[in-house]
Amino acid sequence: MIVPALLTATDRQGRADAGATQALVDRLAPHVDGFLVWGSTGEAVAFSPEEREALLADIQVPGRLWVGVGDESLALARRHAEAAVAHGADFLLAMPPRFYERALDAAAFRAYFEGLAEVGEVWMYHVPVFTKAAFPVEVVVGLAQHPRITGIKDSSGEMARLEHYRRFAPDLRVFTGSGTTLPAAVASGAAGAILAVANLAPRLYAEVFRQAAAGRLDPTLAGLAYELAARVARGGIPLLKQSLRHLGLPVGYPRAPLPETSPAWPEMQPLLERLAEEGWLL
Amino acid sequence: MIVPALLTATDRQGRADAGATQALVDRLAPHVDGFLVWGSTGEAVAFSPEEREALLADIQVPGRLWVGVGDESLALARRHAEAAVAHGADFLLAMPPRFYERALDAAAFRAYFEGLAEVGEVWMYHVPVFTKAAFPVEVVVGLAQHPRITGIKDSSGEMARLEHYRRFAPDLRVFTGSGTTLPAAVASGAAGAILAVANLAPRLYAEVFRQAAAGRLDPTLAGLAYELAARVARGGIPLLKQSLRHLGLPVGYPRAPLPETSPAWPEMQPLLERLAEEGWLL
Amino acid sequence: MIVPALLTATDRQGRADAGATQALVDRLAPHVDGFLVWGSTGEAVAFSPEEREALLADIQVPGRLWVGVGDESLALARRHAEAAVAHGADFLLAMPPRFYERALDAAAFRAYFEGLAEVGEVWMYHVPVFTKAAFPVEVVVGLAQHPRITGIKDSSGEMARLEHYRRFAPDLRVFTGSGTTLPAAVASGAAGAILAVANLAPRLYAEVFRQAAAGRLDPTLAGLAYELAARVARGGIPLLKQSLRHLGLPVGYPRAPLPETSPAWPEMQPLLERLAEEGWLL
Amino acid sequence: MIVPALLTATDRQGRADAGATQALVDRLAPHVDGFLVWGSTGEAVAFSPEEREALLADIQVPGRLWVGVGDESLALARRHAEAAVAHGADFLLAMPPRFYERALDAAAFRAYFEGLAEVGEVWMYHVPVFTKAAFPVEVVVGLAQHPRITGIKDSSGEMARLEHYRRFAPDLRVFTGSGTTLPAAVASGAAGAILAVANLAPRLYAEVFRQAAAGRLDPTLAGLAYELAARVARGGIPLLKQSLRHLGLPVGYPRAPLPETSPAWPEMQPLLERLAEEGWLL
Repeated sequence: MIVPALLTATDRQGRADAGATQALVDRLAPHVDGFLVWGSTGEAVAFSPEEREALLADIQVPGRLWVGVGDESLALARRHAEAAVAHGADFLLAMPPRFYERALDAAAFRAYFEGLAEVGEVWMYHVPVFTKAAFPVEVVVGLAQHPRITGIKDSSGEMARLEHYRRFAPDLRVFTGSGTTLPAAVASGAAGAILAVANLAPRLYAEVFRQAAAGRLDPTLAGLAYELAARVARGGIPLLKQSLRHLGLPVGYPRAPLPETSPAWPEMQPLLERLAEEGWLL
Repeated sequence: MIVPALLTATDRQGRADAGATQALVDRLAPHVDGFLVWGSTGEAVAFSPEEREALLADIQVPGRLWVGVGDESLALARRHAEAAVAHGADFLLAMPPRFYERALDAAAFRAYFEGLAEVGEVWMYHVPVFTKAAFPVEVVVGLAQHPRITGIKDSSGEMARLEHYRRFAPDLRVFTGSGTTLPAAVASGAAGAILAVANLAPRLYAEVFRQAAAGRLDPTLAGLAYELAARVARGGIPLLKQSLRHLGLPVGYPRAPLPETSPAWPEMQPLLERLAEEGWLL
Repeated sequence: MIVPALLTATDRQGRADAGATQALVDRLAPHVDGFLVWGSTGEAVAFSPEEREALLADIQVPGRLWVGVGDESLALARRHAEAAVAHGADFLLAMPPRFYERALDAAAFRAYFEGLAEVGEVWMYHVPVFTKAAFPVEVVVGLAQHPRITGIKDSSGEMARLEHYRRFAPDLRVFTGSGTTLPAAVASGAAGAILAVANLAPRLYAEVFRQAAAGRLDPTLAGLAYELAARVARGGIPLLKQSLRHLGLPVGYPRAPLPETSPAWPEMQPLLERLAEEGWLL
Repeated sequence: MIVPALLTATDRQGRADAGATQALVDRLAPHVDGFLVWGSTGEAVAFSPEEREALLADIQVPGRLWVGVGDESLALARRHAEAAVAHGADFLLAMPPRFYERALDAAAFRAYFEGLAEVGEVWMYHVPVFTKAAFPVEVVVGLAQHPRITGIKDSSGEMARLEHYRRFAPDLRVFTGSGTTLPAAVASGAAGAILAVANLAPRLYAEVFRQAAAGRLDPTLAGLAYELAARVARGGIPLLKQSLRHLGLPVGYPRAPLPETSPAWPEMQPLLERLAEEGWLL
């Protein structure tokens, strides 16, 4: 099950562009099983609560809908969550607070996630490359007992974490958020993937997922999927948006001060051409 | 020059309490040279832009006023900055964006800080314990050339950074934000300190600062100041608010999900008593 | 293919005990495909070159023999390597120098590994939990072009590294050294595993490896293997030796100052009992 | 009090060259208060125990003599310590074991340092840039109670550590090993400095130390000392040896696989020229 962590398209003033975002949704829809809106790839932290709600109101998303709602306090996160539920979210995807990480104990994690679970069905979200904060597996396992905390998107790429969930929280729904380790995640029990790179090559990752789950993964295909994911992980949103603009999708630019273009683009271009030839791109 | 990184007092609903915050300002005012409002200690990231502006409108702060304005995009940070300037800020204290740290190059740092400098006089803010992000000294030195970027609050406690500023940006105004290394910072060229622990014991740190600057620091006093700062650094906002409540100041509780009380309190209490006896507390 | 990273048994004076080490080898031999002597689990760094050579001379190891030879200079590592080859090593397992990591460039890595390849067939060894040093994948891929550098033991547990090898060094022989991520490693192209925990439960990991390679891994078995490996990873050599002593194997104690017993033992004991009942232990 | 962390001169075969090392000692002697032999800068970890003892036998060192003796087991470290004492060491400078850091508890640190204290007077050594391991301040403070553990060389550059020693182990002799933070260390209670960069410019650091201790440090001189120390810290032993060769001292090259020359040399050369003109170099 492949879900794109949807890019937020912007206009030249850096505002969220609902029309262009909808166009991307429509292009992706045939190849994916749902959408994550306002995740890390969607630049959620760069937009105001009002801007985030407005986009949710203005786009239509087929399939299951995850909406990113995590913030630095329960009050701020609840506000995002209420808007998400009002606009049809199936799942509230919440990264833990991170700024005051050192003052968070297990009770604080619980207060935060249980507070959100009053608003809707919650998925936890662990993405240390961005949060640079810990989310201890023991805490995840404890939270997984809650009837309305039903899944986790784990982007750490640390398979020992997935093994820990499989052993100690067997009913937790686990999706990986790491494109570079997709076959490993499937082997470690992941039931799906929510990926930035699925904005660009959804069919490639769907195919890798299928082959890995069936236990017969073509190593060349795996290598290709790894290489693309590694480049996108390194280049981030600037590279991903630049790639989609190159393909003719009007996704605009990252919000300032993120750079408009990526220094990794020259190495990306030949890989995109190969992928296009093989029919893997949008 | 000692400036408290002001706590934001809250009521029992977790809302910013302007009256109680003003009471703290008034207690501190005789002992300090200015205030930082909505810094890390003020839980800025836990409050909405509207809440942050409302408090600025409702309190009166004597001396120089720094206001924390950093955020994850220039658009969000500018909004904080405009509110700050409208309410009398002398200096906009801006931490760099941190979430997409890996995609930030020197031009991105420049775009962000120069964008803020259009709004007011900017101080940079480096506080890696919270941001967990780099702010390369070479970037700081480059930004220091800008006529409206005039200072830095450096809370890293890394004195090699301060030496770097002294060598390569001699006109930059440098304040430390690390209470545990105050004498070192003075020796490394810091002209002042913006401290969380100055909410609690402003005169103690003013005295250490004075002695250190004069080159005759009493080691026992230095030890006391270190010990208090180390405990507060470890216990964070929960411990600091608990200490002030213990002293009768109605600062309320940290915003959820931060815990209301600190596990470090039992060890803090005897130290507070000693400091109270010696006359160092508020 | 499962290979134990052999413990070095010691007598009560802390000297390597060849007889007791041989006894462990003999117990393990029917279940494994070879041995690594003087790896990290063998406490190589805690013994002198003379002690390391003496043990090699005094034990007989069936199957393929890897010998750990890495050290902080090429001169020291070559001395280990020459002793290893003299005593029948098939493969020289070499971690890179780590102390002066910051001064190592790609040419330095090359000088070190090519110098060792003059002595014998070399496998690279990456074990960041102990070395705390980087071994960039690009460097590994470059070294893999050398005709006498034929394999790597990668204990990082980072599956993106394994995907990188699969993509860019498809002929490199890759073994994982991470017991907690064994199924993931198989899915990411690992052809074998050299494991500390294989001193204790070789058949369990051989079975997991077999099932994972066949694409039908029993999740309960995976969970059990994960749990044991996670406990051993946390408890380290003290816990592993304590477990084997508990099973009646005279492996002795870790060399001082490592503790003789592990604080993790009370939680380990019930797990060992369950594994013993199910017939997975030595 | 300034002590150089003495370079080990080598001949073209990479062997320790006692004659050339003695020549360096003789050049430095008028400007310093003692010597550290076989510290990190002396490449101790790159040489065998026999080589290390041979050099100690062959050189004569005026003033106080520290000898680096730390190793990965007590047995190995004791062997270094016995050789050091036999050859006149006043102080045994011991970094803690680091490879199995995670298995070390306070009792293990104690067993190691107390075992060494049976051989001679011990100074602790904390140099995380190389060891990448923790040496908790609470452990240091505990060890400082031992009558034969009398000092610490702390190269972390973390002044909060020095403040901790001043507060909780006031009788411990503290030397910094960080040239970039020398004024800060003096302000934080350091009684001396053992510095790599003192191989090159001992009088410069002696002068900075003197001025800092007197509370009247010239900022330009501080900036110069910082800049040199920062370059040497970044370039490491390759740059330091290259600089001394440039000055005509036959210190040879770092042991392989460290590079013979440093990529940082082009930027170093003009700084050396300025320092030579001002009379600060050897």
